Amino acid sequence: MPITADISIGVFSNALAAKQSTPGGGGAAAIAGSQAAALVSMVINFTLGNPKYGNVEAGMKAYLEQSETLRQDLLALADRDVEAFNAVSACYGMPKTTDAEKAARTAAMQEALKSATQVPFLTAEKCLAVLQLIEPVGRQGNANVVSDAGVALYLANAALSSALINVSINLKLIKDGQFVIEWSTRQAALVKQAAAAYATGKSACEATLGVTL
Amino acid sequence: MPITADISIGVFSNALAAKQSTPGGGGAAAIAGSQAAALVSMVINFTLGNPKYGNVEAGMKAYLEQSETLRQDLLALADRDVEAFNAVSACYGMPKTTDAEKAARTAAMQEALKSATQVPFLTAEKCLAVLQLIEPVGRQGNANVVSDAGVALYLANAALSSALINVSINLKLIKDGQFVIEWSTRQAALVKQAAAAYATGKSACEATLGVTL
Repeated sequence: MPITADISIGVFSNALAAKQSTPGGGGAAAIAGSQAAALVSMVINFTLGNPKYGNVEAGMKAYLEQSETLRQDLLALADRDVEAFNAVSACYGMPKTTDAEKAARTAAMQEALKSATQVPFLTAEKCLAVLQLIEPVGRQGNANVVSDAGVALYLANAALSSALINVSINLKLIKDGQFVIEWSTRQAALVKQAAAAYATGKSACEATLGVTL
Repeated sequence: MPITADISIGVFSNALAAKQSTPGGGGAAAIAGSQAAALVSMVINFTLGNPKYGNVEAGMKAYLEQSETLRQDLLALADRDVEAFNAVSACYGMPKTTDAEKAARTAAMQEALKSATQVPFLTAEKCLAVLQLIEPVGRQGNANVVSDAGVALYLANAALSSALINVSINLKLIKDGQFVIEWSTRQAALVKQAAAAYATGKSACEATLGVTL
């Protein structure tokens, strides 16, 4: 399969709808997160060079560097989601006749599930970073396009929650109690940070736009 | 510009991030809504033909027809969003020297703003229809892929809220009081229906998955 960025939106849509496991929700989440980052970049690009926003130019340039990196990282995570899923799938095909085979299969499956937990967690972390850009960009960015920062807020938040579904699902299947505790704790912390970033980002966009989101 | 479905995900992402008004948040919202519909179709496609879910086959076929129509409609709305924006933009270029010109320009602008309100409203309505499919599909669909219905829930909800930002922004600029009252009322009703569909859809997915979303 070609890398996700090279596929047309229509072809990706058909593949998403089809009876095939990839691309799936994890890929759709990564793309939505990437689009949120793109919209943050758009608001910044309409702010830079505009004399009215000259006082925030330096900060905006730094935010743009972050949003552009996040946009590319999240697109790449759509591919990594497919790889992580395929690694789990491959384990189902491993032989399970002898006890040794069964043990090897289970061990491989458990390792693959750990990767399949870490990839969507990374997607969620990148979406949190996008969410954290909404407050300064929504407050200081070009007011004519801050509605796009509002869209970014909703999409990044949905992408984050979506990615965490796959984290939760996989954690349920992992038998390494230490791993489960560690990643559940990290998940809870991330959810808390996301709620804070969402609230401050929403307020900033509302104040600039003069509408309730 | 080619129709959105034909553009690669990477090229669309670059265009979204660039200092150009289209594609913007409206298009990103329509695409996210379309991806949500695609994920509903995916869950249904993994349910149909599976003997374990034979008892829900007829209902699922009907839901699939709806989700597939919504998937295409929402993709097409990404194009209509560009057209509606361009129509508003074109008004800014109209002459405004004489009083007659000013009046014609204002009238054209007001008409264009009404279209630019109705297109994202239609996007939000289609997203509501996607949201309303989550409950039956999340409850009765193939449990192995209901996590994808959970992603669809988040994306459709975010796309709906995103589209409504553009409705709110445009309503603020429209001087026809009757129009504003009518569409504000419709918007409030839609938000209420969406909240109900979101809550029932979320519960259904949680019950099937055994995790809290």
